[in-house]
Amino acid sequence: MSSAPNGERAPAVKGSAFLRACRHEASGRTPIWLMRQAGRYLPEYRALRARYPMLTLLNTPELAAEVTLQPLARIDYDAAVIFSDLLQPLPGMGLTVTYEDGIGPRVGKPLSSGRDIDLLAAPPAAEALATTLSAIGLASAELAQRGLPVIGFVGAPFTLATYAIEGGTSRSFTKTKALMYREPAAWDRLMSKLVTVLADFLVAQAQAGASALQVFDSWVGIALGRDDYIGYVQPYNRRLFAAAAAAGVPLVNFSTGTAPYIEEVASCGGDVMSVDWRMPLEEYRRRLGEARALQGNLDPALLLAPWREIGPRVNDLLASAPSTGYIFNLGHGILPETDVDTVSRLVDHVHAWEAVG
Amino acid sequence: MSSAPNGERAPAVKGSAFLRACRHEASGRTPIWLMRQAGRYLPEYRALRARYPMLTLLNTPELAAEVTLQPLARIDYDAAVIFSDLLQPLPGMGLTVTYEDGIGPRVGKPLSSGRDIDLLAAPPAAEALATTLSAIGLASAELAQRGLPVIGFVGAPFTLATYAIEGGTSRSFTKTKALMYREPAAWDRLMSKLVTVLADFLVAQAQAGASALQVFDSWVGIALGRDDYIGYVQPYNRRLFAAAAAAGVPLVNFSTGTAPYIEEVASCGGDVMSVDWRMPLEEYRRRLGEARALQGNLDPALLLAPWREIGPRVNDLLASAPSTGYIFNLGHGILPETDVDTVSRLVDHVHAWEAVG
Repeated sequence: MSSAPNGERAPAVKGSAFLRACRHEASGRTPIWLMRQAGRYLPEYRALRARYPMLTLLNTPELAAEVTLQPLARIDYDAAVIFSDLLQPLPGMGLTVTYEDGIGPRVGKPLSSGRDIDLLAAPPAAEALATTLSAIGLASAELAQRGLPVIGFVGAPFTLATYAIEGGTSRSFTKTKALMYREPAAWDRLMSKLVTVLADFLVAQAQAGASALQVFDSWVGIALGRDDYIGYVQPYNRRLFAAAAAAGVPLVNFSTGTAPYIEEVASCGGDVMSVDWRMPLEEYRRRLGEARALQGNLDPALLLAPWREIGPRVNDLLASAPSTGYIFNLGHGILPETDVDTVSRLVDHVHAWEAVG
Repeated sequence: MSSAPNGERAPAVKGSAFLRACRHEASGRTPIWLMRQAGRYLPEYRALRARYPMLTLLNTPELAAEVTLQPLARIDYDAAVIFSDLLQPLPGMGLTVTYEDGIGPRVGKPLSSGRDIDLLAAPPAAEALATTLSAIGLASAELAQRGLPVIGFVGAPFTLATYAIEGGTSRSFTKTKALMYREPAAWDRLMSKLVTVLADFLVAQAQAGASALQVFDSWVGIALGRDDYIGYVQPYNRRLFAAAAAAGVPLVNFSTGTAPYIEEVASCGGDVMSVDWRMPLEEYRRRLGEARALQGNLDPALLLAPWREIGPRVNDLLASAPSTGYIFNLGHGILPETDVDTVSRLVDHVHAWEAVG
């Protein structure tokens, strides 16, 4: 189904501005894509969601591929990101996931004991996640003609564990941390099982046609301080990045709220560090060194502002970015309330800035 | 009603270990109190809540004082914190606040325009917040005999603004940031009005008998990066701390998620910096300097662990704390799931450690 089996991307895709920046090579222009760019801020996405439930969109390859391609039909993004969800691996492991409008994903019977964890399955992605892999194949075949890469992704073990234990989003992550502290052996088994499943899924996504892979540790920095990160998360993220290297494509290490210990996060791996807005990019550069490519840093909420506020802030960010090895992005997913025209203007502005800069 | 009118505390209270630590004086033992120590982890609090709605507890001076004193009847805390709520000033300003079990506070008609903001009142605390001031008088009179101080508090302007604009707790603070970016003049009027109301309330709490005052900027670091903090929050917090100096008691500057720019937060004022768990205490010490007293740093979720996990971590924290000018506390409020016996043991452990250390 993929246009490029065995991880061989079409030459045009390989030379894309996004992939060159991932490899810290000069890329001609600053590449830009936005997390959740295939999503609710797009009227054409909302129209599809009005016709299909979330689970249908996620698990019908043709629909997921269509959603993936939607933003690229009208906005000059430098990459597509597969339309999927962090929780996609959980049903194959034995957990029920539902999506309720306005609430987000819910896990039917959250994990509450070591026994629950031992009962989790670890099926191969080729079986359990075939629909997402097919969608990647369809989208990457379509985009190869335009020289644009598809980015695959997974949630990091900690972030997935929070959903599996809390049953949904959380503010204090109380149940997750209680299990982690009280039953460290069960925590180890859960995190190890997640590493196995997620590493396999990452490699399978590259084989299906993804040209880069991002690991989302969306909540780890909100939940944990440095010592807990080192003790309960870092060993597993290291194993995940080491195993995902077999995919043979650039890896992006994403987290939020981790500025206080970003060096520890970076040490887990990844060609690109995707950083949030809570610390200026120049400070991330200083602490991470110039060898590592960077992505992100703009506050998603800034896109709700008028352009007179956005423009100068974007210029400041671009001025503080390295000339190679930087991918423009937000510090987290684009907000559903964002105006599409603002996004188009942002993308064109980023591309034009580099041309003059 | 206060046992010590005109801000004159009883000598025993003035010499309390907590107040001495606030002033960076040797205090004999490491003082400890916990945010939300008068609250849901206590069976006797839950028993009262079963009999009275939240608003009745908050607005009946005798009941609020009783709740304030509850934890000190069984745990050797070095200070009481008045039983109140960050949103208490909002009804007097014209907003309706309700409390729903399991959801938290809700604001009836959240602010959505500059006109809404202009319609907000700014009544004196002596009128609009008389019940909380009376409760402080009752509790401080009771505790003066034991030489224990009562801590008063307010929410910081940004944190109160998020509740007034979002209508409750939030994850992304989208509406708040949209108003801030789109209508900076209205934002300035809102924050200025909040500074007026909150500064007056702080001074009134000290006059009513509070021996120290804490300003809670609970969500600012989750929401904002450094530049937005400097542009949209710092000027108002500076004005608030400057005005609150008239209270003549130690001021505690609390926030969470602000490790990336803690120096900017500290520059607003406060005798004591109350810090979260996302960065180790020694790093906060290094960045804030030794002149400023420190409070906090323990992850509230750690108290859900068995003592074999808690004990060594508490010892590490104590070992990294300065010998004067440190107040043991959590990085945020105690979780309702926390076991009371664990808390008693923690408090005794902190006191005993200093005795040997």
